[in-house]
Amino acid sequence: MSGSSFGNIFKITTFGESHGKAVGVIIDGVTPGIEIDESDIQRQLDRRKPGQSSITTQRKESDKIHILSGVFEGKTTGTAMGLVLYNEDQISSDYNSIKDLFRPGHADFTYLQKYGIRDHRGSGRASGRETSARVAAGAVAMKILKSRGISITAYTVKAAGISCNKRDFTVIEKNNMRACDSNAAKEMEQRVISLADEGDSVGGIVECTVTGVKPGLGEPVFDKIDAELAKAMISLGAVKAIEFGSGFACADMKGSEHNDSMDKNGFKSNNAGGIIGGISNGEDIIFRIAVKPTSSISKEQKTVNIAGKEQLIKTEGRHDPCICPRIVPVVEAMTALVLIDMYKREAALLS
Amino acid sequence: MSGSSFGNIFKITTFGESHGKAVGVIIDGVTPGIEIDESDIQRQLDRRKPGQSSITTQRKESDKIHILSGVFEGKTTGTAMGLVLYNEDQISSDYNSIKDLFRPGHADFTYLQKYGIRDHRGSGRASGRETSARVAAGAVAMKILKSRGISITAYTVKAAGISCNKRDFTVIEKNNMRACDSNAAKEMEQRVISLADEGDSVGGIVECTVTGVKPGLGEPVFDKIDAELAKAMISLGAVKAIEFGSGFACADMKGSEHNDSMDKNGFKSNNAGGIIGGISNGEDIIFRIAVKPTSSISKEQKTVNIAGKEQLIKTEGRHDPCICPRIVPVVEAMTALVLIDMYKREAALLS
Amino acid sequence: MSGSSFGNIFKITTFGESHGKAVGVIIDGVTPGIEIDESDIQRQLDRRKPGQSSITTQRKESDKIHILSGVFEGKTTGTAMGLVLYNEDQISSDYNSIKDLFRPGHADFTYLQKYGIRDHRGSGRASGRETSARVAAGAVAMKILKSRGISITAYTVKAAGISCNKRDFTVIEKNNMRACDSNAAKEMEQRVISLADEGDSVGGIVECTVTGVKPGLGEPVFDKIDAELAKAMISLGAVKAIEFGSGFACADMKGSEHNDSMDKNGFKSNNAGGIIGGISNGEDIIFRIAVKPTSSISKEQKTVNIAGKEQLIKTEGRHDPCICPRIVPVVEAMTALVLIDMYKREAALLS
Amino acid sequence: MSGSSFGNIFKITTFGESHGKAVGVIIDGVTPGIEIDESDIQRQLDRRKPGQSSITTQRKESDKIHILSGVFEGKTTGTAMGLVLYNEDQISSDYNSIKDLFRPGHADFTYLQKYGIRDHRGSGRASGRETSARVAAGAVAMKILKSRGISITAYTVKAAGISCNKRDFTVIEKNNMRACDSNAAKEMEQRVISLADEGDSVGGIVECTVTGVKPGLGEPVFDKIDAELAKAMISLGAVKAIEFGSGFACADMKGSEHNDSMDKNGFKSNNAGGIIGGISNGEDIIFRIAVKPTSSISKEQKTVNIAGKEQLIKTEGRHDPCICPRIVPVVEAMTALVLIDMYKREAALLS
Repeated sequence: MSGSSFGNIFKITTFGESHGKAVGVIIDGVTPGIEIDESDIQRQLDRRKPGQSSITTQRKESDKIHILSGVFEGKTTGTAMGLVLYNEDQISSDYNSIKDLFRPGHADFTYLQKYGIRDHRGSGRASGRETSARVAAGAVAMKILKSRGISITAYTVKAAGISCNKRDFTVIEKNNMRACDSNAAKEMEQRVISLADEGDSVGGIVECTVTGVKPGLGEPVFDKIDAELAKAMISLGAVKAIEFGSGFACADMKGSEHNDSMDKNGFKSNNAGGIIGGISNGEDIIFRIAVKPTSSISKEQKTVNIAGKEQLIKTEGRHDPCICPRIVPVVEAMTALVLIDMYKREAALLS
Repeated sequence: MSGSSFGNIFKITTFGESHGKAVGVIIDGVTPGIEIDESDIQRQLDRRKPGQSSITTQRKESDKIHILSGVFEGKTTGTAMGLVLYNEDQISSDYNSIKDLFRPGHADFTYLQKYGIRDHRGSGRASGRETSARVAAGAVAMKILKSRGISITAYTVKAAGISCNKRDFTVIEKNNMRACDSNAAKEMEQRVISLADEGDSVGGIVECTVTGVKPGLGEPVFDKIDAELAKAMISLGAVKAIEFGSGFACADMKGSEHNDSMDKNGFKSNNAGGIIGGISNGEDIIFRIAVKPTSSISKEQKTVNIAGKEQLIKTEGRHDPCICPRIVPVVEAMTALVLIDMYKREAALLS
Repeated sequence: MSGSSFGNIFKITTFGESHGKAVGVIIDGVTPGIEIDESDIQRQLDRRKPGQSSITTQRKESDKIHILSGVFEGKTTGTAMGLVLYNEDQISSDYNSIKDLFRPGHADFTYLQKYGIRDHRGSGRASGRETSARVAAGAVAMKILKSRGISITAYTVKAAGISCNKRDFTVIEKNNMRACDSNAAKEMEQRVISLADEGDSVGGIVECTVTGVKPGLGEPVFDKIDAELAKAMISLGAVKAIEFGSGFACADMKGSEHNDSMDKNGFKSNNAGGIIGGISNGEDIIFRIAVKPTSSISKEQKTVNIAGKEQLIKTEGRHDPCICPRIVPVVEAMTALVLIDMYKREAALLS
Repeated sequence: MSGSSFGNIFKITTFGESHGKAVGVIIDGVTPGIEIDESDIQRQLDRRKPGQSSITTQRKESDKIHILSGVFEGKTTGTAMGLVLYNEDQISSDYNSIKDLFRPGHADFTYLQKYGIRDHRGSGRASGRETSARVAAGAVAMKILKSRGISITAYTVKAAGISCNKRDFTVIEKNNMRACDSNAAKEMEQRVISLADEGDSVGGIVECTVTGVKPGLGEPVFDKIDAELAKAMISLGAVKAIEFGSGFACADMKGSEHNDSMDKNGFKSNNAGGIIGGISNGEDIIFRIAVKPTSSISKEQKTVNIAGKEQLIKTEGRHDPCICPRIVPVVEAMTALVLIDMYKREAALLS
């Protein structure tokens, strides 16, 4: 209701600000008897954490996961899992200089308008740090989905104006951009570094492919699987757009081109992106999201303070000049959370 | 949970198939004491109903609204409103020939996979007819929002490959495409008719502008106002993509370009589309959706029947060759439902 | 959120006032492929409807059910079922004389305080008529539960000060009190009629026994099966109390007496009422509810009008002098709704 | 959905087992700008914690609260509050001897049936320790309610067969039974100690009085204020029954006796317990719950092990011989959680 919960049956509720004591998540609805330990979760968190490469922020967050409940002798008990990550690098004084300023592109202004009070350290609740709780919960979901043969892979397809020319999944974790084309990745990285040197940042596009989803998953009307995925993705602060299958290109297509016809071997195209009427058709689920350029830049920008007085601002410290590589595991986590919930909703309906 | 409800406080739950007895909606959480009568709702339904012009389907649905509860002596009582539209033009035998065929682009295959049973008449629950319940509920929401100074306007900005060159809101209801540019509208209509004559259909892009939303509306983390709007829009069967503000264009932008900086007069640009960190910033909320070409076309297409045997199919009858003009009131209704819920969520949080 | 929905997966949402056009319910989450027709539902409604015997109100409500959606060729489709009962005997003018009076024991005062507006005809949304929607939905739940071997039986165990001395389920539907003891039933009926002749009413106790629930059903912590049943029962306007198993008697017992110990044949007593830690233990689920005397009596009572002026009031017309017999099917319906939801929640958790 | 959440707008989600690492709660929907610190919460936890007196268990749980998020510079920020209590006295080996036994009166059997796996240390998720998370969340709710003039007082009215003869609220916190009658309290305590010496336990009745609730609070139909309170109370593992106002006594009353009539000074009696039609009438809200005798007793009892073999069991260690005094703050906390949610729901509806 107040924005901290996601999912219906496999339901997560998160808390935590970037510079408070901790971020954490409660997962309710976890299948009992699943083998899981902290390393399953840590692996995903490590993909999201800062300081991984030259093009991610050098902030130090060890992002160490602690399972506080719901697991007994290495297996889930079916009761609520409490997970927590303590914040370590929380030197709030860093933010004193911008305490009363609205950083351009950040939620400083909107949070103060909404709540009448604002934790100005980092971005408080609006910080990307919040997504580590999503990644932790998603790791649990993925463990269950994997046993059902489902594979979720997200990757950068465009950044800093450079597009991937192929979809080579084997290289994604081998380049700093998490791009699906090594050559493009190199170019992207160079341009990103060059923009970072200018004190600027840049956007990109991340695509996600899900294989192994059986046909018939998803709910009708309001809770279509693509509708839930859209909500999941747009709920990431940096994401401005999402498209499924043909996406915006469908606007220029004719029905006779766009309709995915079937023959005895199945669908002959995938303009639907694997979802028709909100329900999976057995093809790969494919969607793309637009990632805006990081709001925190060290270039000088114009803004106002809380009294409305115009001022100049420079966001000090190192920030990710392009969020794409670090948003990839978050996209996968959110996709996993949508899918596990859909599987459980289906079991409920059919029983 | 099973897809028929939307909203948290101003919550709607719908029912109904295209060729069953009726479609309807229960609205719970309606502010008491609001003056409303059936004409307020009928006006919006008339904008969605078929048969409005040469480029909408000629099916006859009078779409007459009946308020069954929740209104007493012309005012809402604060208890659940039950609204129903009886189906009239339900000649099921029209569909006998395609009873066992999967129509390309339709949810026939996926519904059968999910439920193991399928109402083949029209598209059953997956029919666009379902959206009339949304429009009815949205009309109630709009009535309340209007008194808060909020105005929601959707319009076609592209169709059949032709784009609007201006945003002239005064012409929207005066052309058959509900486009915001009279000249473009004429061209669009010609091409749409020409494609219809070929037995084909075509897609487009609809934009929505919301004015009058005060800054500070929306929830953090998962229930960001744009996340809820994205879910609302992608939950429309024909919508394949959504973008807010700069949208996909942000992928190629630098932070210094994309950040909407402020001066003493407010924001100097609106790449954010009126929403930062999921919360309104007081600027116009702007988003665009991609509308796929109508799946029902009279051109012959390849498909299979439920036994997997290949067959040819022609969808008889008149269908909308371009859904844009009729989806416009649905987009407005869904936007209204998201916003009214957000206003009520805010009142709840702050109290 | 605003009180018109019940259940999580098998979820019902109701609407309707006693003297409006109709009452109805949408059921979302119905298992697809279940054979059902209107007679399955009508049978239960007929047990609740007025005018069944000399001790129920003589109002004429045919309570005829109409299935508007979700059923195709005699089977549920898995999509939302819309059910409606049109109101027939709605002569509002009967209520003109009490339009501005607060009837003692009725929700007239509290509704006006809450909403600032009130449908004074009958009791509006607060009328017992609302429960017919519950009974309709419960009938669908029962159909599914029956196939799982679950049997739900409610019956009057006390009324007008007379208690049943045995639990003879075969006589319940054969006496006007729906009591489980024929002799007691006769005595009860006489006293009830005699009280009715005096223009008065009287309360009673209804018990419910559920057999066939497998051990392990129910959720931990907040959504214990007894917690959900308690909510379900106390949500009936006339119910002032509920107790499970030993109930209030447990207050005077020692642990060594109260603990239900097990031997190799299972539990040796059932003080738990079939539920421990909120989860079924395989024994019969047993609970009792206290039903207050009907508020509507023809005896003259003191009250005030909406201006605060003292007045005398006589509730004209025939009313149930004891609600027990008519609340029995409602208790069964609500029990069925709780149980079906729990079965579906279990399937979701374990999947 | 899986039982760990309570409330709609002021919504809590808890986690934690008695012998895991911690118990905790996330509160979403907290009004921003409320002054709160850990001492506000600690005060209530100290009333629930073990070891307070000779008649509570001597287990050592310091129950120290940690606020991990949602509070900034002494005020709530309106974002999710994360609260945690680390478990200290978790010597799991104490439980090795009963690892495979079903303790009579405990949820050992039902949890194993449900989940197929069980944390046997203490009672895992089914432990009373779980209620400390409720008390912590309730303390936050109380802080807000107090500023609205609402006062919630629970107290023992019967224990070990001894009833209070008066309602003296000034003595409640001054006797070990938290009873509302000093003399009765002394007698209760003696009998409880004497039963404890025999290795036995005993039940009781706790009453709760809420003053200061304005008329018009609560929702219609399913979410009546008494229905939500009933769910809240019966969700406590030791509670077997609840009654409002006249409660079970209403079964023997006539309508003319039971109806609370009004004169110009308001209601002349309170059989309704402050709630009519699920909505507060401005009178004190009064309910009573039956508390079963503690299941853990040191007397030898018959049971079976998980293989179905009969065995004798003695629950070692000190346990509360009567839960009444320690359940009092839990009852108050749950009442506060229901009421704060209702106030927020009202604000949402009326806005």
